[in-house]
Amino acid sequence: MAKDLAPGQLLARGVMRCLMEHGFACLPEVVPKPGLRVDVMALGRKGEIWVVECKSSRADFTSDRKWQGYLAYADRFFWAVESDFPTEILPVETGVILADRFGGEILRMAPETKLAAARRKLVTQGFARTAALRLAGQDPSGLSVFL
Amino acid sequence: MAKDLAPGQLLARGVMRCLMEHGFACLPEVVPKPGLRVDVMALGRKGEIWVVECKSSRADFTSDRKWQGYLAYADRFFWAVESDFPTEILPVETGVILADRFGGEILRMAPETKLAAARRKLVTQGFARTAALRLAGQDPSGLSVFL
Repeated sequence: MAKDLAPGQLLARGVMRCLMEHGFACLPEVVPKPGLRVDVMALGRKGEIWVVECKSSRADFTSDRKWQGYLAYADRFFWAVESDFPTEILPVETGVILADRFGGEILRMAPETKLAAARRKLVTQGFARTAALRLAGQDPSGLSVFL
Repeated sequence: MAKDLAPGQLLARGVMRCLMEHGFACLPEVVPKPGLRVDVMALGRKGEIWVVECKSSRADFTSDRKWQGYLAYADRFFWAVESDFPTEILPVETGVILADRFGGEILRMAPETKLAAARRKLVTQGFARTAALRLAGQDPSGLSVFL
């Protein structure tokens, strides 16, 4: 399995496992608006929305020109990096998750900037539709509408 | 596949295929509150929530003591039945979808009773978390957190 996944996708796997342990439902590779793709979006039991960007290297981080655009779609924003990543270069106003392909832990909690109600509604609906449509395409229970 | 599914589940499959053609993302067997399980919940592009109960026979319908409880979780409520079902026994204030395991069509549009904002928010969040958690358990892409 692993050989088919990019380093960032492997990190996303560990991140999702970590966040599920914190009670979140997670979805990888979510597009909240055209041209913007977040690595992991997570929805908590109280409706809180977290976004995590996975960075496999310093170069992967420094070449990212889009991350500030993600802030408008999350109550809290985190980076996920491996343990050898120089975390001191990450902006102090963001959260940090140490992860590998097998799991992760929250190293620094992100500050909370609550989404406005209208934005939250749209993001939650988009998350819901994306998850259900993906599920319909690959549900092995026999209920899949495409099979 | 079919031999493992109950008649109502086969109808749900056709219903989901039908509603996806109408732009809805669908989820089978959703539990909006303990003790209440709807056969199909569907989320439209504008956030509208439809609930469909699948009835494989007259007896299946007449023995249903819970359906009015579903109305509080949907903007529109439908029954799904096969073409030989006596649709005249279905309450006039509900919608009707004619379906089989392969598809369906809306025979009578359900009247709209819009959910209050707070209820809509909770139902949408529950739909989103249910879909993402199911997906995480069976995602064949290799990103599944359980594998």
